[in-house]
Amino acid sequence: MRYPLLLEESFELLETPYLLVDPKQVVKNYRRLIRAFKGDVVVYYAVKANSHPEFLRQLNREGSSFDVASLGEIMKLIRLGVRPDRMSFGNTIKKPKDIDTAYTMGVELFAVDSEMEIDKIARYAPGSKVFVRIHTSGLESDWPLSGKFGTDVEHAASLVDWARFRGLKPIGVSFHVGSQNYNPKNWEIAIKDASKVFNEAARRHHIILDFLNTGGGWPVKHTKPIPSVEEIASTIEDSVRRYIGSGILIATEPGRYMVGNAGTLVSTVILRSRRLGKDWVYIDAGVFHGLMETIENFRYEVLVYSKEDDKKKVFTLAGPTCDSVDVIYDEVELAESVTEGDRVIFVNAGAYTVEYGTSFNGIPSPRVITVEQLKTLSELNKTA
Amino acid sequence: MRYPLLLEESFELLETPYLLVDPKQVVKNYRRLIRAFKGDVVVYYAVKANSHPEFLRQLNREGSSFDVASLGEIMKLIRLGVRPDRMSFGNTIKKPKDIDTAYTMGVELFAVDSEMEIDKIARYAPGSKVFVRIHTSGLESDWPLSGKFGTDVEHAASLVDWARFRGLKPIGVSFHVGSQNYNPKNWEIAIKDASKVFNEAARRHHIILDFLNTGGGWPVKHTKPIPSVEEIASTIEDSVRRYIGSGILIATEPGRYMVGNAGTLVSTVILRSRRLGKDWVYIDAGVFHGLMETIENFRYEVLVYSKEDDKKKVFTLAGPTCDSVDVIYDEVELAESVTEGDRVIFVNAGAYTVEYGTSFNGIPSPRVITVEQLKTLSELNKTA
Repeated sequence: MRYPLLLEESFELLETPYLLVDPKQVVKNYRRLIRAFKGDVVVYYAVKANSHPEFLRQLNREGSSFDVASLGEIMKLIRLGVRPDRMSFGNTIKKPKDIDTAYTMGVELFAVDSEMEIDKIARYAPGSKVFVRIHTSGLESDWPLSGKFGTDVEHAASLVDWARFRGLKPIGVSFHVGSQNYNPKNWEIAIKDASKVFNEAARRHHIILDFLNTGGGWPVKHTKPIPSVEEIASTIEDSVRRYIGSGILIATEPGRYMVGNAGTLVSTVILRSRRLGKDWVYIDAGVFHGLMETIENFRYEVLVYSKEDDKKKVFTLAGPTCDSVDVIYDEVELAESVTEGDRVIFVNAGAYTVEYGTSFNGIPSPRVITVEQLKTLSELNKTA
Repeated sequence: MRYPLLLEESFELLETPYLLVDPKQVVKNYRRLIRAFKGDVVVYYAVKANSHPEFLRQLNREGSSFDVASLGEIMKLIRLGVRPDRMSFGNTIKKPKDIDTAYTMGVELFAVDSEMEIDKIARYAPGSKVFVRIHTSGLESDWPLSGKFGTDVEHAASLVDWARFRGLKPIGVSFHVGSQNYNPKNWEIAIKDASKVFNEAARRHHIILDFLNTGGGWPVKHTKPIPSVEEIASTIEDSVRRYIGSGILIATEPGRYMVGNAGTLVSTVILRSRRLGKDWVYIDAGVFHGLMETIENFRYEVLVYSKEDDKKKVFTLAGPTCDSVDVIYDEVELAESVTEGDRVIFVNAGAYTVEYGTSFNGIPSPRVITVEQLKTLSELNKTA
């Protein structure tokens, strides 16, 4: 099914832009992921992908753990009843005050990739468990990593030792193959790299690690074919067995995968114009209002509602602000007859959309509405 | 003076990141701009640059007009007591509902660059004044325009005719030389282009235009020398006289110029690390928290407080989120001894910083505090 239930009804009831979300889909995604692994796996949902309370509540009920980026996310989860020992403070750049408060609240697991971060954790969260993030090279990815996170194998092994020296409990290694990764082979390469840290830690520092956090990267279907969850899970389990061995607790940090197909972004065409030899379509969502990832050329499936099967034409698609950067796609195929008032739908847009929202130009960020809320609204509307 | 008064005091009283602003500086900037023109000039402050109420209040008191991008900005101004006839709805991409409400509230002036926009204004704001935005070519600019706004001279002249045909009052032409423009010559080129629309409208359609909106582009001092306000104003007036003639009402839409040097962004170093052959400094402001423009390589003057005159070293400067895009500068010179807890100051950061703020990663956008608020806070602190 291309569209969620009640989509058409939402057009009548809500002002665009908005993200229509289905928390039940998140539950399906979670269960499928758990089942895809033959052995145990700890799922840390990457809250930053979409922190809608209903998503977090459903995942908590399923028994998911959570990867958190800040104290703000930790406090939000605590208010929703998530136990702090089910959180991994996965950001390698943490404020001292935030480490302090997280530790006081009961968070026990922290990511590191530098001496200074270890020193801060030793000071503000003494005795805590840490894992060291490595930067893996040689990965093919749509989005090459900037080198902002992770370190090389040798440095990682010395950080394991440093963490122990500072009184922390180094338990393992993490990596990230890059968001929206299309090739399971990349997880294998990363696990092979990670295995070297396990070996070095044991050989040089006599520290036995038993935790491997395989990060995110699980893709969502947009315009290109993607490998299945089962294929990636089996690559991960096979590679861990082959390169590291048995008795390793495998973790994963899906963000995009968990919520991407649980949301549909709905916008409206404000203007169509032909100027300077190009055809432009302007909608009320944009780079600063839900579609930030498109400036890195992230390609969504974009449909003009009720004109899906019409003849197509190439347009430049832009957002509603007075900002020349606010151009979604320089070239995208849309129904040739697209015009003012048409609904433009971004399929599988549940991840990394509203989280990047601004109020730039005095235009509010897209609202989020669940299918349940929409049903209530629809019933109220009928009885009114 | 490199730093605003009370900066050091703010370190004690406020948690970073924050933007410390001085509304009095905005008044100075406004008065200098008015004085720089020998004749009359209508200043439409581009609210999108910084919509802090105190900036808007001060400018309203000075008699400034306002360039607005959305209904949200219009309503904000109305709540502050700004008269709607002092607003120009300068966005060429307006929602029908927003045009309707703006017209009802009393907004009289609208920007257009397409037939469809004229049709919408004719329907929802009948009889209103409009000006046609042109896209000027051949401008040297740090930030080449994307072609998102404006049209060519011939099309613009036909739009003037179309607006009259639809019962509107076409009064003139606008252009934009591109934000943070360093060369007064670019205004001359644009005015020469605009003059062709004046001529075509008179010659072919017998419509006399008498309004020229010269847009924004006025630069703020960062790392490169800038031309003076007086130099740009005199280029504008000379060019209008030379290419268009007398009796033309000149307008301008400064945004960055008006508020840029009225704000200082204060952040704190969270982490310094050496990994993969590079030295990284991570601060608590970033691309998604006040420094969005740096991904287009907008260069601020960046200082490490109390280490301004120390030996320098090249660092990669990054923000606090788990996002590899959140890298402020790949290479920037900072004090060699920079470390955790140091304050990193972005000078003249009053424009286009907090307006682009997100809550990504659960991290709040930088707060804005005025020097007056800081004084009050400081006094309260002393008496407490």
